[in-house]
Amino acid sequence: MKTDVHDKNNYTLLCDFYEFAMSNGFFKSGFKDKIVVFDMFFRSVPDDGSYAISAGLEQVIEYLENLKFDESDIDFLRSKGIFDEAYLDYLRNFKFECDVWAVPEGTVVFPHEPLLTVRGPIIQAQILETMVLLTINHQSMIATKANRIVSAAKGRPVIEFGSRRAQGYSGANLGARAAYIGGCKGTANTLAEKIFGIPALGTMAHSWVQLFETEYEAFKTYAEIYPDNCLLLVDTYDTLKEGVPNAIKVFNEVVVPKGFRPKGIRIDSGDIAYLSKKARKMLDEAGFEDVQIMASNSLDEFTIQNVLIQGAKLDSFGVGERLITSKSSPVFGGVYKLTAFEDEKTKELVPTIKISENVTKITNPGFKEIYRLYDNVSGKALADVITLHDEKIDDSQDYEIFHPIYTWKRRNIYNFTAKPLLVQIYEKGKLIYDMPTLEEIRQHAKEELDTLWEEVKRLDNPQEYMVDLSYDLWKIKDDLLERHGKNYKRR
Amino acid sequence: MKTDVHDKNNYTLLCDFYEFAMSNGFFKSGFKDKIVVFDMFFRSVPDDGSYAISAGLEQVIEYLENLKFDESDIDFLRSKGIFDEAYLDYLRNFKFECDVWAVPEGTVVFPHEPLLTVRGPIIQAQILETMVLLTINHQSMIATKANRIVSAAKGRPVIEFGSRRAQGYSGANLGARAAYIGGCKGTANTLAEKIFGIPALGTMAHSWVQLFETEYEAFKTYAEIYPDNCLLLVDTYDTLKEGVPNAIKVFNEVVVPKGFRPKGIRIDSGDIAYLSKKARKMLDEAGFEDVQIMASNSLDEFTIQNVLIQGAKLDSFGVGERLITSKSSPVFGGVYKLTAFEDEKTKELVPTIKISENVTKITNPGFKEIYRLYDNVSGKALADVITLHDEKIDDSQDYEIFHPIYTWKRRNIYNFTAKPLLVQIYEKGKLIYDMPTLEEIRQHAKEELDTLWEEVKRLDNPQEYMVDLSYDLWKIKDDLLERHGKNYKRR
Repeated sequence: MKTDVHDKNNYTLLCDFYEFAMSNGFFKSGFKDKIVVFDMFFRSVPDDGSYAISAGLEQVIEYLENLKFDESDIDFLRSKGIFDEAYLDYLRNFKFECDVWAVPEGTVVFPHEPLLTVRGPIIQAQILETMVLLTINHQSMIATKANRIVSAAKGRPVIEFGSRRAQGYSGANLGARAAYIGGCKGTANTLAEKIFGIPALGTMAHSWVQLFETEYEAFKTYAEIYPDNCLLLVDTYDTLKEGVPNAIKVFNEVVVPKGFRPKGIRIDSGDIAYLSKKARKMLDEAGFEDVQIMASNSLDEFTIQNVLIQGAKLDSFGVGERLITSKSSPVFGGVYKLTAFEDEKTKELVPTIKISENVTKITNPGFKEIYRLYDNVSGKALADVITLHDEKIDDSQDYEIFHPIYTWKRRNIYNFTAKPLLVQIYEKGKLIYDMPTLEEIRQHAKEELDTLWEEVKRLDNPQEYMVDLSYDLWKIKDDLLERHGKNYKRR
Repeated sequence: MKTDVHDKNNYTLLCDFYEFAMSNGFFKSGFKDKIVVFDMFFRSVPDDGSYAISAGLEQVIEYLENLKFDESDIDFLRSKGIFDEAYLDYLRNFKFECDVWAVPEGTVVFPHEPLLTVRGPIIQAQILETMVLLTINHQSMIATKANRIVSAAKGRPVIEFGSRRAQGYSGANLGARAAYIGGCKGTANTLAEKIFGIPALGTMAHSWVQLFETEYEAFKTYAEIYPDNCLLLVDTYDTLKEGVPNAIKVFNEVVVPKGFRPKGIRIDSGDIAYLSKKARKMLDEAGFEDVQIMASNSLDEFTIQNVLIQGAKLDSFGVGERLITSKSSPVFGGVYKLTAFEDEKTKELVPTIKISENVTKITNPGFKEIYRLYDNVSGKALADVITLHDEKIDDSQDYEIFHPIYTWKRRNIYNFTAKPLLVQIYEKGKLIYDMPTLEEIRQHAKEELDTLWEEVKRLDNPQEYMVDLSYDLWKIKDDLLERHGKNYKRR
């Protein structure tokens, strides 16, 4: 029997084969100890949004802590017939030696900002590519999508209901984690509570109702067993003619006499705007004004926004496939690019660039830092500036930012506080980061979002948030482009 | 440190919490040993296609073989405060007792057909829901998407390149497996070869080129190390002005003198139709007519079809994010529905139905079988008929099929062979299925696809394949709809 997990927590070989081909090549061609810098960044926000929420760092660390090649891995690689024995020996005794910086999970991030930076020997830094991307791409996408949905729900709880439609097991489990970071209140996935402590919720499916002679009997039996958590699924046969009246009957006959208040009803099909308004009226008239209505049929931020505009009377949402797969935008296109290497003689970092016909695909060279500039009066984030790593932004005086492509677009920032976003996670292969709890990460995301203007957070056609380059970084980039004869200012 | 995999191969708790709530409820309300039938089926094909390829059964079996509740699971469930101790004891001593039928992996399947059927005690059958759906939904979606892409490539090899954009680790690993079933020739994911034996391929990324002073030097070094597998990435700086000329130079200076033929070049950005035609001409003029051109930039079945129509000179495709996430249709909407239960007195199966406002969401009741009717002359599949499980289709005489909703649409089938599609996998909890190898599954998919008419396989606006109900099954469904006052013929 084969499995998708060959060794607990060890995804060392979940690595594009070319990374090993190159790493062996670097080894054989004398580049073994060449120090390089790689950035992980993304180029555009899913769903044409303006912001993303970074997530997945904890699992990147978990991967790095378990990075090792056992004998079966070595044997397998040898069987490919292209690797040097000395390189395989190197892998056998692999010891992670890189420095790593990253933005903490739950941080609001923008295109072109390095979410994670690796500095170390190229043979090591190269083989992290797939797992760093896979991990951060996936969770950042789901955290971002979840936040859009939570935002559309305007304070009403959103529960992640998507495991059955997730793209694989880690899609479900880590998707639940990322959704929680993005603001979901809970999950349907029991394992996600056991592993991560995310509240797992759920009461009944249609099968419960179908198994009994009548819907009334099904509701009654459920209420007798769970009088204190009685949330009934009312759409198995006919929501308004059968489901809601049967629920009210059972609330009156079983739940209330047992001394409890019913929790609610759930509508999983049909026109939920219409049905919820009618159901609300029926519940209110029966004296159940406090009983909540949950909706759970193919929802996302767009449908939630629409049904609320139409006056739907809904108290919470169970959101499944469109959240757990980020259905309307199911790829978070993060990339991992070489941005600098150390000159062997001078030991200085030489910035490098990847040119592209497409201007937005040109990389930002060099070893970098991100500063976020907060307005001292409102506390709101005004702009981000990507700088060289050892550059400082002096927030005791005004600072002029400018657009990195349309350089005539300039703005003076004053009375602000500049905060660097990258935190060092590894120093020479040693973990030096004090990992926050999932609750702390979720809280951090919430606080981060509070610093964004509403215009930036808007679901449709949001205001673009400024992410500019410092003059020094821009100059390096411009010089590199000149050198390659592609000065994009003139294109 | 938390992980998404709490115990190797054990996803027992990867289960929507309501399944445990119901299962405990069945236990407490005397339904513990009630025998039921659940079907897993889907309602529509992704990308408006006409067929899907079933995949994931091996992992469902793996899950079932490892289904167990350890003490930490029991403790966790107890902490939720709603479960009966007797029920927890039942789980602690859980022994799988169900019968399971499924269509073998690699089988071409259509909407409303049961891909997997479970018959057994409801407290067991219910808790399989999430994992059965998650597993089969995910892999069937990717196998189907891969097949569409492979089909668009018209015989040219398609390599799965998507790990970095997959939705989690099993999204990458099992996605590579499903893509292979769907017809991909290989994967970039090294682990997928180690686990599943899928050929892992890859040579270089842009970082290789960037690390050297010049592209020429980068190519030369690579060719010296890998003269026998020299496939060069030519778009780091300028594909036609630098990349291809440098590649040709290195092929001539290094690869050929070492006694090898170069493998090819890869284009990862820009207009691949235009670039490939120009590059082909340059290679041919340099005497490298046999050197292949691979493309790998945001491809899927639509872009591949388009660039080939535009005369692109491409020999193979590396397909990433749009395959591994099934980007244009990232949800395979399989459901798991109760279709029958055993009458306690008569021990007969009583069919049950889930009504919906939406006609296509109404379930097919009862314990069922699928027959595929093959034309004895052409060998092509003519139609599928869903029947009662113990019904036989007599292919020694003509058979009239009719549309289950528009019942006046009828057709007489003659000179055909009827083949049942469901295979028994478990008998009273015991695995009785002889698992095919991945190569056999892939071959089965290929043979299955050969039995479909080209019109059915068309990517755009395909001919709908007929999936009808036998008269006996249709009558049961019609009677149940009458009983609920929703005779959909009159709607």
